Amino acid sequence: MKKLINGVEDVITDTLRGVAAADPRVEVDADLKVIYRKAMKSGKVGLVSGGGSGHEPLHGGYVGHGMLDAAAAGEVFTSPTPEQVLLATQKADQGAGVLHIVKNYTGDVMNFDMAAEMADAEDIKVKSIVVADDVAVQDSLYTAGRRGVGLTVLVEKIVGAAAEAGRDLDGCLAVAQKVCDRGRSMGMALTSCTVPAVGHPTFDLPADEMEIGIGIHGEPGRERVKLEDAKSIARRLVEPILEDYDFSGDPVIVLMNGMGGTPLSELYLMYAEVKALLDTKGIEVARVLVGNYITSLDMAGCSVTLLSADTELLELFDAPVDTAGLRWGM
Amino acid sequence: MKKLINGVEDVITDTLRGVAAADPRVEVDADLKVIYRKAMKSGKVGLVSGGGSGHEPLHGGYVGHGMLDAAAAGEVFTSPTPEQVLLATQKADQGAGVLHIVKNYTGDVMNFDMAAEMADAEDIKVKSIVVADDVAVQDSLYTAGRRGVGLTVLVEKIVGAAAEAGRDLDGCLAVAQKVCDRGRSMGMALTSCTVPAVGHPTFDLPADEMEIGIGIHGEPGRERVKLEDAKSIARRLVEPILEDYDFSGDPVIVLMNGMGGTPLSELYLMYAEVKALLDTKGIEVARVLVGNYITSLDMAGCSVTLLSADTELLELFDAPVDTAGLRWGM
Repeated sequence: MKKLINGVEDVITDTLRGVAAADPRVEVDADLKVIYRKAMKSGKVGLVSGGGSGHEPLHGGYVGHGMLDAAAAGEVFTSPTPEQVLLATQKADQGAGVLHIVKNYTGDVMNFDMAAEMADAEDIKVKSIVVADDVAVQDSLYTAGRRGVGLTVLVEKIVGAAAEAGRDLDGCLAVAQKVCDRGRSMGMALTSCTVPAVGHPTFDLPADEMEIGIGIHGEPGRERVKLEDAKSIARRLVEPILEDYDFSGDPVIVLMNGMGGTPLSELYLMYAEVKALLDTKGIEVARVLVGNYITSLDMAGCSVTLLSADTELLELFDAPVDTAGLRWGM
Repeated sequence: MKKLINGVEDVITDTLRGVAAADPRVEVDADLKVIYRKAMKSGKVGLVSGGGSGHEPLHGGYVGHGMLDAAAAGEVFTSPTPEQVLLATQKADQGAGVLHIVKNYTGDVMNFDMAAEMADAEDIKVKSIVVADDVAVQDSLYTAGRRGVGLTVLVEKIVGAAAEAGRDLDGCLAVAQKVCDRGRSMGMALTSCTVPAVGHPTFDLPADEMEIGIGIHGEPGRERVKLEDAKSIARRLVEPILEDYDFSGDPVIVLMNGMGGTPLSELYLMYAEVKALLDTKGIEVARVLVGNYITSLDMAGCSVTLLSADTELLELFDAPVDTAGLRWGM
């Protein structure tokens, strides 16, 4: 295993030291591994997310103006504990309640639920949205229903803007639900990632094969097939998304996401194919993000997320944001 | 070789199709592989860079307000031709002359020189700055003197701001020279990258070894050593930089850069070690960028760049920028 780390047991702590040193927007609770905004706005709905580490910049890199108020960082690919999520919730609470943004993954859902109950006992009002956008598999070993993947980035951005604009807790939840209703994702991998504490690749993928529909922890996808060109891979990702939801109405926001080990140039190349495919279907692209936004450590591969975005969602997407992972308008 | 591509011969063309489709700031000349700004400001000094592809987002991802006006994309790790650089120069020229920002690499220097002569014949005034910041090796197989690496990103950002603010060609050159005088870099690799047209890793690096002082094309560095922890690697990168230039004066801008295949979490972890080391030396960090800014395809590894930044350089660094690769203040 080749990684830029000290000991495998210190990976999260050491990474958070770097975040604390590098990101002027955030404070870090080193014990409970919670990243939260330095400057909070009284009366704003608090937004909290979190999950297993290894998906950076998700979630800690999205703490800041216009996105999250706090994020709980679990061990690599491991749900954060209820205590972690509770602290994040306490930090985010500014008197207007807190929205939990939870990727659908059984451990995350359970621990965010427990944290919500603990917060409720402290009179912090919590509501939750569970993101379940992965069209690849219906149920898996780790998740009942669909897994939450790339759409989470867009939920955090768009609901972050709504909260910043002063919407109340029910209003933020409604926007989050709307994004979840209208967004779908699918991913693929060329190579496995290597979890530091494990020390070897999560799975073996022969030199001439790829995995279609993989999960962000390397969970099995739909199928393993021989390597294909970018054009065919784009089709394998986009067509199941289009079969699952009718994207013919509003224009779409596209997230062309890298899994961590794939060069940016290949993501642009993939986007060329995705765009060409959407063109043939008459689907207009309103906005696009190309880069590493929700990753799986050093996995080579990519995912595509489409969100059918009406004027409300586009305006919220375009609103200023200032985080380590997404920044514009300020 | 596992890559998200169509044919190896189409890698650059296909990538540029993606850039053209995704980046609303730029136009792409598909024949000559030049990326240039859609909206140019009359009377502004034009800034042009370029070089071999494979280092994305450098240079095409830095075309936009506050950075470059045009970039010439050579084949992977191959200098752009004089014709490519000439077209970039023509596109960037708004009547106030053009500054070429050239990474020191023999082919780049030669072809930019020829392009400058060709532009001169068309009455476009061109001056050049050669960035040579890599402290790892003095001369190499491919470059006389030091190689140009990470500091190039900061030159493009800072001189971009100076040009946007209306400085004339000599003024822009003077700022570029100042950045070059005050900045140093050093990099390392855990793994080799794979050039698409070659199809196998550029070099073999045993599972328990790393290369210190590697070049961005995978050229040999200072030495191969056994794997070490992040703290030791930080020392191996930062100490040669500090020995080469006196950073005790002004605060520094740090570029904690990934080589393309290294997860963002590891770059934050590395930055924690770099920051701790600078703290012990009494060197204040004024600004920091952590991420993939000048890469080597899918190479795992990182580089550190330090720039001693006085008030002028900090102000120019902080000025608004709107490119695919760097964006703030707008």
